[in-house]
Amino acid sequence: MKQKIKTTAVSGFPEYLPADQLLLDQLKQTIAETYRSFAFIPLDTPVLERREVLLAKAGGETEHQIYCLENNSDDLALRFDLTVPLARYISEYGGVLTFPFKRYQIAKVYRGERPQKGRYREFYQADIDIIGEGLLSLNAEAEIIKVIATVFEKLAIGPFTIKIGNRKLLSGLLASLNLSELAVEILRILDKLPKIGEHACREELEKLGLNSSAVKEILNFASLKENVLEKLELLNIKNPDFVVGLGELQELAQCLADYGVAAAHYSFDLSIARGLDYYTGTVWETFLDDYPELGSICSGGRYENLVTGFNDRAFPGVGASIGLSRLFYQLKTVGLLPDLPVAAADALIISADRQRGEELADSLRRQGLNVTGAYGPEKLKKKLTLANRLSVKTVYLLGEEELDADEVSIKDMVTGSQNRQALSDFI
Amino acid sequence: MKQKIKTTAVSGFPEYLPADQLLLDQLKQTIAETYRSFAFIPLDTPVLERREVLLAKAGGETEHQIYCLENNSDDLALRFDLTVPLARYISEYGGVLTFPFKRYQIAKVYRGERPQKGRYREFYQADIDIIGEGLLSLNAEAEIIKVIATVFEKLAIGPFTIKIGNRKLLSGLLASLNLSELAVEILRILDKLPKIGEHACREELEKLGLNSSAVKEILNFASLKENVLEKLELLNIKNPDFVVGLGELQELAQCLADYGVAAAHYSFDLSIARGLDYYTGTVWETFLDDYPELGSICSGGRYENLVTGFNDRAFPGVGASIGLSRLFYQLKTVGLLPDLPVAAADALIISADRQRGEELADSLRRQGLNVTGAYGPEKLKKKLTLANRLSVKTVYLLGEEELDADEVSIKDMVTGSQNRQALSDFI
Repeated sequence: MKQKIKTTAVSGFPEYLPADQLLLDQLKQTIAETYRSFAFIPLDTPVLERREVLLAKAGGETEHQIYCLENNSDDLALRFDLTVPLARYISEYGGVLTFPFKRYQIAKVYRGERPQKGRYREFYQADIDIIGEGLLSLNAEAEIIKVIATVFEKLAIGPFTIKIGNRKLLSGLLASLNLSELAVEILRILDKLPKIGEHACREELEKLGLNSSAVKEILNFASLKENVLEKLELLNIKNPDFVVGLGELQELAQCLADYGVAAAHYSFDLSIARGLDYYTGTVWETFLDDYPELGSICSGGRYENLVTGFNDRAFPGVGASIGLSRLFYQLKTVGLLPDLPVAAADALIISADRQRGEELADSLRRQGLNVTGAYGPEKLKKKLTLANRLSVKTVYLLGEEELDADEVSIKDMVTGSQNRQALSDFI
Repeated sequence: MKQKIKTTAVSGFPEYLPADQLLLDQLKQTIAETYRSFAFIPLDTPVLERREVLLAKAGGETEHQIYCLENNSDDLALRFDLTVPLARYISEYGGVLTFPFKRYQIAKVYRGERPQKGRYREFYQADIDIIGEGLLSLNAEAEIIKVIATVFEKLAIGPFTIKIGNRKLLSGLLASLNLSELAVEILRILDKLPKIGEHACREELEKLGLNSSAVKEILNFASLKENVLEKLELLNIKNPDFVVGLGELQELAQCLADYGVAAAHYSFDLSIARGLDYYTGTVWETFLDDYPELGSICSGGRYENLVTGFNDRAFPGVGASIGLSRLFYQLKTVGLLPDLPVAAADALIISADRQRGEELADSLRRQGLNVTGAYGPEKLKKKLTLANRLSVKTVYLLGEEELDADEVSIKDMVTGSQNRQALSDFI
């Protein structure tokens, strides 16, 4: 006997039943519409890239997580993020594009890692970047942060804070303490500060061989929370990187105010270091105020040159990325998604006459509603069950009686109320 | 010296510059919105499937075109269409889904074939299907055909005809001529009828060994164009398949009229046979009246059971597929896409004051416009060039003079006309 074929979902490759699918799609739409409203264009690069392109930019673990195709002469592999394809695109078409180049891409990426709860092998990222040619002002940071703040306002998942740091400040501070050589290790420890706390951080820093005055200065710096800009000036550090970084942070503060980003949505936090090496200036992470345990739900920052490794020209950029599939899983887990299901249809037409039914349906579709019809011989009760299962908001009934009177019964499926209206109001 | 990494697009994997990207995205949006307006939900299955799932349904050449991943324990491969993943999904979740199940999926599929003009290895399909449980009435055909007709009306690419046939009629006719065993070969020849003409078809049919009266009957049947339903009745064929097929076509004619599909958009054409074996009843192909040489731009039909090979239950369906990437290439080639480029931004704000500029931008965004700002020190002329390159429709100027007067200069970039308005009209 032929063995049965497995039709279950493959571990790490999420797929959803309609209710969740509609909800996820709504999140995607909200993010895309917000990106579009700031005039970012929807770039759509191939899912497959040459392996060498991916390897040129893959660091650390990622390199071993790349899915490669077998037996193909182009040596193709699946992208592991949306930044490397953007870098290749800019490197290839930089000569004919218009800068600043503002693009978004909401698409799937692939990592062959061991799947865990909320960590997938195929997952959506929702990226947004502004790329400059030669130069790119700090307005770009303000704009991207404003877009991100607008996205999370619209998603309505509770209060959030975009915590903003600057890598030049951190590296300048370390240079002024003659600790540049230990920068990578120190940043890695500071990244854990919110999780493990100051005491554990101090111990780890001391283990690195730092003297207690340096440890104190670093922890003091990373713990600055209120009036950060003034306190940074008072540190009076002369290191050139630090001075530039402080200037950038001051200018960014002004930009964010000018761009109208609500003060409640961001703060300066110098412990933010971001794991990715390619950020060179401003960096940020985003936290839900009531759910800090979820970790950052959107990270981003400034990179000096996007196309390093592909091209000798300078294309500085600012970008942010939302790990959409993971965020969806997290929001579902903590119960932050809307209580009411997204309707598969705004309206269901139940009609004894197919033609009149579709005329009504078309008039509602022209009003922008998503409308489905039930014209079969099934019982009314069965059709109303269908309406409930599709989370339909309004049912339009055209029974024999209504048709004879040229009327339609309109049933609000949320309140249960029902009224009659002349068909001519619609058709 | 390190060898330079190739950043060009890989052959067969299309990517676009912004102007084309925006246009393609607009086509995608129009199709998706139309599908949505009929209350189809946006299913989104993984790009990767188990190889055995794909092989269970891959026929002929397709089997050899499947891209497989190397070194992975799940034996994953890239989907070659969107129907097989739908079949797997229905087979797996059929017990908890609501039927009729109406879904669309606009997504990339993969075929490792030799790329040619307009034929890609990675390309978009825009699929729509209605799946029933046990039974599915001919309303499903009417609905899908109506959706497809609405899509092509909205795309505004000129007059089109959905040519509708029925496989039962064809196979019934062949059975009545004792030619069932040659059905596959005969259908393949008939499929070429519009391209090679009646004379060449006759020769090919005769080469198969058919006698001249059978050839005449088949060609007569396949050439029926006007009053097809009446002429079919006059043929007086008693084969049960034929009788059922004729009944279906008659009922479909009534359904299409009831659903309000414009008569100009479809015709009955019995030469339509569709290559894919899984269609069992109604079949159709769609042609642009002025560009028949493009071939069918949307095919579809009825299949008796979607999940054959996965499951023993019966899930009949009706579906259609638009080969979006290929269609986009074709429309571009024959010049059927809009003359005016899609705007990357509806409005560009040029302001000497960042804050007032963003206030104005936000007020326009709230009106649903896509708005970008230019607040840098660059000259006005350079910023207007940016507006042109982004195909911006309207530029809002807030120079020192305007700001002093609390006004804004509004420049229509299409007509070139300019006027001034109070800023308070917006903010």
